[in-house]
Amino acid sequence: MSTSFAERLEAAIVAKDNPTVMGLDPRWDYLPASLQALGVEAGLLAYNQALLEALAPWVPAVKFQAACYEAFGLAGQKALEASMLLAKELGLLRIYDAKRNDIGSSSAAYAKAALGQEEGPFVPLDADAVTVNAYLGEDGVRPFLEPYLAEGKGVFILVRTSNPSAKDLQDLPLQDGRKVYEAMADLVAQWSDRFDPKGRYSSLGAVVGATWPSEAKQLRARMPRQFFLIPGYGAQGGSAQDAVAGFDRSKGAGLVNASRSLMLAYQKQGLQKEAFAKAAVQEAKAMQAALKEALA
Amino acid sequence: MSTSFAERLEAAIVAKDNPTVMGLDPRWDYLPASLQALGVEAGLLAYNQALLEALAPWVPAVKFQAACYEAFGLAGQKALEASMLLAKELGLLRIYDAKRNDIGSSSAAYAKAALGQEEGPFVPLDADAVTVNAYLGEDGVRPFLEPYLAEGKGVFILVRTSNPSAKDLQDLPLQDGRKVYEAMADLVAQWSDRFDPKGRYSSLGAVVGATWPSEAKQLRARMPRQFFLIPGYGAQGGSAQDAVAGFDRSKGAGLVNASRSLMLAYQKQGLQKEAFAKAAVQEAKAMQAALKEALA
Repeated sequence: MSTSFAERLEAAIVAKDNPTVMGLDPRWDYLPASLQALGVEAGLLAYNQALLEALAPWVPAVKFQAACYEAFGLAGQKALEASMLLAKELGLLRIYDAKRNDIGSSSAAYAKAALGQEEGPFVPLDADAVTVNAYLGEDGVRPFLEPYLAEGKGVFILVRTSNPSAKDLQDLPLQDGRKVYEAMADLVAQWSDRFDPKGRYSSLGAVVGATWPSEAKQLRARMPRQFFLIPGYGAQGGSAQDAVAGFDRSKGAGLVNASRSLMLAYQKQGLQKEAFAKAAVQEAKAMQAALKEALA
Repeated sequence: MSTSFAERLEAAIVAKDNPTVMGLDPRWDYLPASLQALGVEAGLLAYNQALLEALAPWVPAVKFQAACYEAFGLAGQKALEASMLLAKELGLLRIYDAKRNDIGSSSAAYAKAALGQEEGPFVPLDADAVTVNAYLGEDGVRPFLEPYLAEGKGVFILVRTSNPSAKDLQDLPLQDGRKVYEAMADLVAQWSDRFDPKGRYSSLGAVVGATWPSEAKQLRARMPRQFFLIPGYGAQGGSAQDAVAGFDRSKGAGLVNASRSLMLAYQKQGLQKEAFAKAAVQEAKAMQAALKEALA
């Protein structure tokens, strides 16, 4: 039995004294010309390497947005694989933000691709955790939980997302008085009680957007054992106060994501693009301080 | 202005006189030992090539299940790219069954990865259509519609899936009397009226599981202009009668998927694994006949 993902995540947050996850969602125009000149694979990897090495002392985890790599084809996939490996070597927990979903047999293949380890013809990413969209219900989710939670891996299910149109479906009121996203939260809590019943925190977490702090508080009551992966801080408009609204009473169980606000910190600081990694460290320190103040 | 995806799909179905899409969801143990011996990339491609060349005279479209390729890492991605290209050369419409979803900026990257064409550092798959999970609402869907529908591409949004646990969230009753999946159907119809208002059929279609024929009929009333991509036939338990329940009054606007029932037809026919492609042709002809009878 491996140490659980929840235990590893909690320990990493305590060790860095920072509940931040750095989002590595590179866009081609984020790269300085000197890195673009290396070509796609080497350029993306060099960009990620600069950020990973600069931020590794400050953040416990890194989140890779799958779409940003897929658009580059094979070169993007190679850069993603190499970046995942580098992040592991730097001691960072690695969340593959892929929002995967399908019927059971296909979800099993997605789960293997994201969380599995090399075996026979299969060459998975071996991420520490993956994000999942549970519109298809339990049999589409279960292959991500079994056997992977017992192997120390984690899953974050989309409950309330951070985008304006989240309301289109997620806010619809159900006959029983709940909203759709509250029903999703209850499913997540039920699944974690069934598939991961032990420990203070579950390795089955939830994505809860920071732009909706009032909902985050209500969702905490529904999901007391879930780690919340909290997007929306910074570029998407959420404040530090908003971001920590869903943390639990012991000021834990939350992981706040920042992608664009770190990657584009050089703009805010009036620096050249080449200084992106240095600027990201400054921004990450400011974010750490803001979150600590909001939690105090 | 390109010919729309809906027009291309309708024409292809009429030309082949067959509303079937072949699912190419290879599992390693589906491959005969002689193909496994080629290695992952060449083995998967040879397997797909055999099926594509054998079935191209009989089916209008092919659906690639993304998870089945991702689990093999880069070799799987290379096999997928090459298979997509081969399917195009064989005149087949290619649906990338990836069930992608995210907030707008990331959905734009997913849309490019699936539907875009090579440009600068980007090497997209250039599929004809992609499946999308719309739990995140309009701003997560719109990047798949604009500009791609106008460029002749198509999108299928998950409305009612074919798996047993679809009920967990999709069947929950809303305050206004609809179920969650009916609300999703109404969103799809609204989006198609706004983003693709012209033509008898929309290039924004819907995934409607064949294991729920009564729901399929109700959903047709809610989505008169949508092509239904209908999984669940064969291995998942749906009959031909079930599968055509969602077709429209002119017996069109439906595309029935068969994956395992075609790929594993050699078992049903008591043949050796090496005869998989020949067996798949026999099964596809039987399916074509069954669907025609059910539609008659």
